[in-house]
Amino acid sequence: MEFAIVGAGMAGAFLALSLGRQGHAVTVYDRRPDPREMASAVTSMNLGLSRRGLAALDSLGLSEEVKRLVVPMHGRMLHNLDGGLRFSAYGEGGILAIQRQDLSALLVDAACRVPGVRFVFDTRCTGVDRDLPSVSFVDPDGRSLVVKPDVVVGADGAFSAVRRSMHHDQRAEFSQHYLEWGWRELHIPAAADGTHRMADDVFHLWPRGDIMMFAHPNRDGSFTCSCVLPFHGTHGFDSLRTPSDVESLFREYFPDVLSLVPDLGETFLRQPTFNLVTVSTAPWVHEGKVVLIGDACHAVYPFLAQGMNSAFEDALELTASLAHHTGDTTAALARYYTRRKPNTDALAAMSHRNFAELRDTVRSPAVRLERACDTLLEKVLRHRWMPLHAMVTNTTIPYAQAQHRATRQHRILKYAGASAVAALTAAAFRRFRR
Amino acid sequence: MEFAIVGAGMAGAFLALSLGRQGHAVTVYDRRPDPREMASAVTSMNLGLSRRGLAALDSLGLSEEVKRLVVPMHGRMLHNLDGGLRFSAYGEGGILAIQRQDLSALLVDAACRVPGVRFVFDTRCTGVDRDLPSVSFVDPDGRSLVVKPDVVVGADGAFSAVRRSMHHDQRAEFSQHYLEWGWRELHIPAAADGTHRMADDVFHLWPRGDIMMFAHPNRDGSFTCSCVLPFHGTHGFDSLRTPSDVESLFREYFPDVLSLVPDLGETFLRQPTFNLVTVSTAPWVHEGKVVLIGDACHAVYPFLAQGMNSAFEDALELTASLAHHTGDTTAALARYYTRRKPNTDALAAMSHRNFAELRDTVRSPAVRLERACDTLLEKVLRHRWMPLHAMVTNTTIPYAQAQHRATRQHRILKYAGASAVAALTAAAFRRFRR
Repeated sequence: MEFAIVGAGMAGAFLALSLGRQGHAVTVYDRRPDPREMASAVTSMNLGLSRRGLAALDSLGLSEEVKRLVVPMHGRMLHNLDGGLRFSAYGEGGILAIQRQDLSALLVDAACRVPGVRFVFDTRCTGVDRDLPSVSFVDPDGRSLVVKPDVVVGADGAFSAVRRSMHHDQRAEFSQHYLEWGWRELHIPAAADGTHRMADDVFHLWPRGDIMMFAHPNRDGSFTCSCVLPFHGTHGFDSLRTPSDVESLFREYFPDVLSLVPDLGETFLRQPTFNLVTVSTAPWVHEGKVVLIGDACHAVYPFLAQGMNSAFEDALELTASLAHHTGDTTAALARYYTRRKPNTDALAAMSHRNFAELRDTVRSPAVRLERACDTLLEKVLRHRWMPLHAMVTNTTIPYAQAQHRATRQHRILKYAGASAVAALTAAAFRRFRR
Repeated sequence: MEFAIVGAGMAGAFLALSLGRQGHAVTVYDRRPDPREMASAVTSMNLGLSRRGLAALDSLGLSEEVKRLVVPMHGRMLHNLDGGLRFSAYGEGGILAIQRQDLSALLVDAACRVPGVRFVFDTRCTGVDRDLPSVSFVDPDGRSLVVKPDVVVGADGAFSAVRRSMHHDQRAEFSQHYLEWGWRELHIPAAADGTHRMADDVFHLWPRGDIMMFAHPNRDGSFTCSCVLPFHGTHGFDSLRTPSDVESLFREYFPDVLSLVPDLGETFLRQPTFNLVTVSTAPWVHEGKVVLIGDACHAVYPFLAQGMNSAFEDALELTASLAHHTGDTTAALARYYTRRKPNTDALAAMSHRNFAELRDTVRSPAVRLERACDTLLEKVLRHRWMPLHAMVTNTTIPYAQAQHRATRQHRILKYAGASAVAALTAAAFRRFRR
């Protein structure tokens, strides 16, 4: 079959590869230039590749190639206000830090090697006729171009043009919500000898309640930091007007970073501020003709680092559904939607909650206690107890199921409290002693 | 100041009149033809004009003129399955049934008589530059037209083009939700002698749980009925395929209407199905340059009959805010938004809940009991106790305040139960006897 994918980002490029391997003809269009030819991308936080993303890449035989581009993060390093550090391990596998552009270029490159797959860059989608189906584009010279594939795929992100056309005049559910926080990127360069200036195998986190920062190690000895602040208020972007405003904020909240970023104040003020949006919508498909994947149908807050990982899962599920219902694309798309929607709804809810938890990690004793119990129980009960973060990050358990299990575990911890911990621990020990 | 209003529906025409009276220059654009020249409109349910709407019209000196076009409805007539009828009075004022096109033509006509106000029909808005501000249109001959007023008003309904342009690339909150129910219009013609074939001074309601119907009397002896069904399932629009399917549905659920609509089956199948959408968004304004009113910023389900009434309130609040902050349009629009948003949020919540109650009116003894207590307390306590429906319909109490009072009353009824009723009644009697 013939597919036109709108959007050559993570979701689109991965799907092109996956569909191409199944023998489909795929053309991917993107309004941006070829990522392999771009100097650098400043469109998103660094990516965290976790178990699900890696499993997806592995299923297409790419995991070895990808592993050459990553920096493994074995746990989370909390930076306290007093300069103290606290490490907590992620558990098996950990999270792999990878720069967006590296992975993007790799995926496009790999997809291009598959016969029947091609990419058309610098070409903007202007709309979709969902019933033909057809897609209209404007090419770099301003000429319009109309293509008529069998299936149109919207992999064009949170503000998807395909989605808008597909839902026009339909009874479509749609909501978008923004956090009152935004983020700016900062760069900690490598030391003179090319080494990392902080621990190079962890995810660094500075949780400060209303504001926070985190950093990913890069292969070249540098770190990419994301600084998350409210838009308004005392610590808001709008009250940071001069380099010295920025420096005093860092001196107060992120003192250990102050000296690591050259020209911190100036640099910070020059950076663009990015928004944090969550998008929920239904349906994701129109008959057997149009289908959405990734952020186009379920953009989430990035703090669980599952955006790319879930988009890869979408792509695999879509490919599998097409194989499952060969010859009946309507049934295939319906199956894909039915199987993915509950999971990405769960992911959205978990990502939302996770943001509050991340910011408060240091302050809330309740959160810390629950996390400690969680970790203890995981150690003792092995696979019968697993903290939510571990299920999301270290497994491929469907999100909805992970959420359900975590809710149940949370309830046990909350209501049964210490006695439950003791009883379960005792039970587990008995089992081990047998 | 110079205003360009996009949309000449209820909200736009009323606002034009209100702003024109304040001495502003106003041009109203609409993509539809002049309502005064249209044969008939089939774009919406008949309208229910309640106390707030009438007060708004009165403030512009139009209430006498409007009253000539209405049919007063003094209460609600429930049609039971067995053909039995049950009447419940609306209380002072009642609701006035009016045909959309009649009121629309009257408003446009009245606005045209104000110097400085003019209407441009058959002219479609294609976008807004929120910073200039300017509005682009396409006229009936396909030529484009750009106007540069001081303020652009989006009164262009639930799918507002002004809203889309204003929010483009902004951190705008937006959600739209559809009911799984839709509705079709039916017409009960007058009897041979020109009289109404059912009671002519009430709102007729056939609540049947999953489905329902209601009817407004018209001045010519006819009734306009709205038949609300789910889209799918046993009684859904999609299972009504032949005239006899329709007739058996009516025989089962609306037997007394079967004989009143000529060619019921055929007519029903020819009618378009309308959706029921609720839209919530923020912000409603961009600096002192663009502002939204009516459905463009708060489309609600129509079952509380407050869509038009709340749009009129928007228009008056906007006019008052502009007068309050003469010379500072940014402050004026901010004041308007701050004062209206909590009220229309409350209206949306109440409209949503009301739909379930309306459908279930007959079936749920709890709803009936609470309503009976409500009515009793209202009689006894006069203005110190008022059912929600009465506050919404018979007063101009701001919606948020009405919702708050109703919540408090509901809690009293729910928790204190019969004893509270008795105590309050006794207290009230004591007060009366003094």
